[in-house]
Amino acid sequence: MNNPIGIFDSGVGGLTVLKEIKKKLPAEKLIYLGDTARVPYGNKSKDTIVRYSIENTKFLMQFDIKLLVVACNTSTATSLRILKETFDIPIIGVIEPGAKKAVEITRNYRVGIIGTEATIRSSAYKEEIKSLNKKISVFSKPCPLFVPLVEEGLLKGPIVDDVIAHYLKFFKNKDIDTLVLGCTHYPLLKSSIGKFFGNEVKIVDSATETSNMVLQLLKEKGIISRRKKALEPDYYVTDAAERFLKVGRTILGKDLEKVAVVHVGK
Amino acid sequence: MNNPIGIFDSGVGGLTVLKEIKKKLPAEKLIYLGDTARVPYGNKSKDTIVRYSIENTKFLMQFDIKLLVVACNTSTATSLRILKETFDIPIIGVIEPGAKKAVEITRNYRVGIIGTEATIRSSAYKEEIKSLNKKISVFSKPCPLFVPLVEEGLLKGPIVDDVIAHYLKFFKNKDIDTLVLGCTHYPLLKSSIGKFFGNEVKIVDSATETSNMVLQLLKEKGIISRRKKALEPDYYVTDAAERFLKVGRTILGKDLEKVAVVHVGK
Repeated sequence: MNNPIGIFDSGVGGLTVLKEIKKKLPAEKLIYLGDTARVPYGNKSKDTIVRYSIENTKFLMQFDIKLLVVACNTSTATSLRILKETFDIPIIGVIEPGAKKAVEITRNYRVGIIGTEATIRSSAYKEEIKSLNKKISVFSKPCPLFVPLVEEGLLKGPIVDDVIAHYLKFFKNKDIDTLVLGCTHYPLLKSSIGKFFGNEVKIVDSATETSNMVLQLLKEKGIISRRKKALEPDYYVTDAAERFLKVGRTILGKDLEKVAVVHVGK
Repeated sequence: MNNPIGIFDSGVGGLTVLKEIKKKLPAEKLIYLGDTARVPYGNKSKDTIVRYSIENTKFLMQFDIKLLVVACNTSTATSLRILKETFDIPIIGVIEPGAKKAVEITRNYRVGIIGTEATIRSSAYKEEIKSLNKKISVFSKPCPLFVPLVEEGLLKGPIVDDVIAHYLKFFKNKDIDTLVLGCTHYPLLKSSIGKFFGNEVKIVDSATETSNMVLQLLKEKGIISRRKKALEPDYYVTDAAERFLKVGRTILGKDLEKVAVVHVGK
């Protein structure tokens, strides 16, 4: 029960999920893998993303993890089912929690989803929401420039506002009351996105919802750590750590300790 | 002498180089590899890019190519020397031709370079230019958002102008008279970049300069194809071809035939 929780993402975005889990469960040991050598996943094919996701999970399994969090919407959308069939531990993705929350809070049954091309193409959010309440209308829009913007540290200002308007004007006549940020990078653009909608649309951040589900699952299974003190996470990346450290500092608001570069896959 | 010419890039950008070679040498058989499963290279470490470049070259060597063109600035900057040491065929990169042209046309000896983070970090252009004429001052600026913009098909308009201004205002007080587009994607932004400088700066497009060097090398070695008719290139990609086909159409102005998906590397 003191075993670690494994978390992987294609890069640095999943740190928004790690941050929320750490806030709720400080005594858990978290091991994070960012596949920075092969980022981004969002514009790659399903077969390739599945292969990468399996390789990432195998890497984390060596630490005898008690729970795996797939902190990447693209991996969750394309690979969660296969991972659950392949590995014999509890696995939580980032899509179900965000979809559930959207279904819970929408009042007019009109929900928007934004994410990478691969996430939107998979229809995973739409299917999840429809399976919970088929009366809800779902409107989806891929926003491929959002991840590069965040990775460049551009979180607000005229360029960000222009790019947000470029994509999100799609929702202007859709009358949505809820928007799901279907990519772990997007919480960093939350205030700029909120501004675009004049804060009339409720924004669901899957990082927060996922951490709630992790807490609940650990409780249900009775495997919450009994440690008394907080632990720092271990970080692994598959390529040069500089950019990871830079964007990581933006996300976590502090320097990351213990980052190691590893080779994952064949 | 009728053997093919191999060309590789991290993705679709190298097609700007292929296009120029095809224009000058229509009877050559061109074989293009776009490593779309691992794109982009620009934000990855030197070791990783070298490994990818060697794997790409090995793939092309199986076609018994008479010449290799490294149509990727990032690969050229980090790996050209190692590739030349490892493989026993003539190899041309995209940096030397652009650097030579810049040295030839600058009048005030002040040259700007733009490219990906990895290309700029390598100082390859600066070293090449300084080796040709050490009196020339070189000013370099990485522009990480340019590739995502081009891949999104955003080549002009207010977002493009804002992003261009965001990076290129760096050159405003540098008094350069020549700017080298040190990334194979950037020729697609050439007119927007020219507009930013009010067309007062000469823009060097390494795709054109590289094709000139290919022609010259084939002549010198007496290995120009003796075929009488034009041939269509063969295209290989390492991941889903949809995006490659889409951006490829933008670059070549026509649909790409004969595109196959292959696995490269271990």
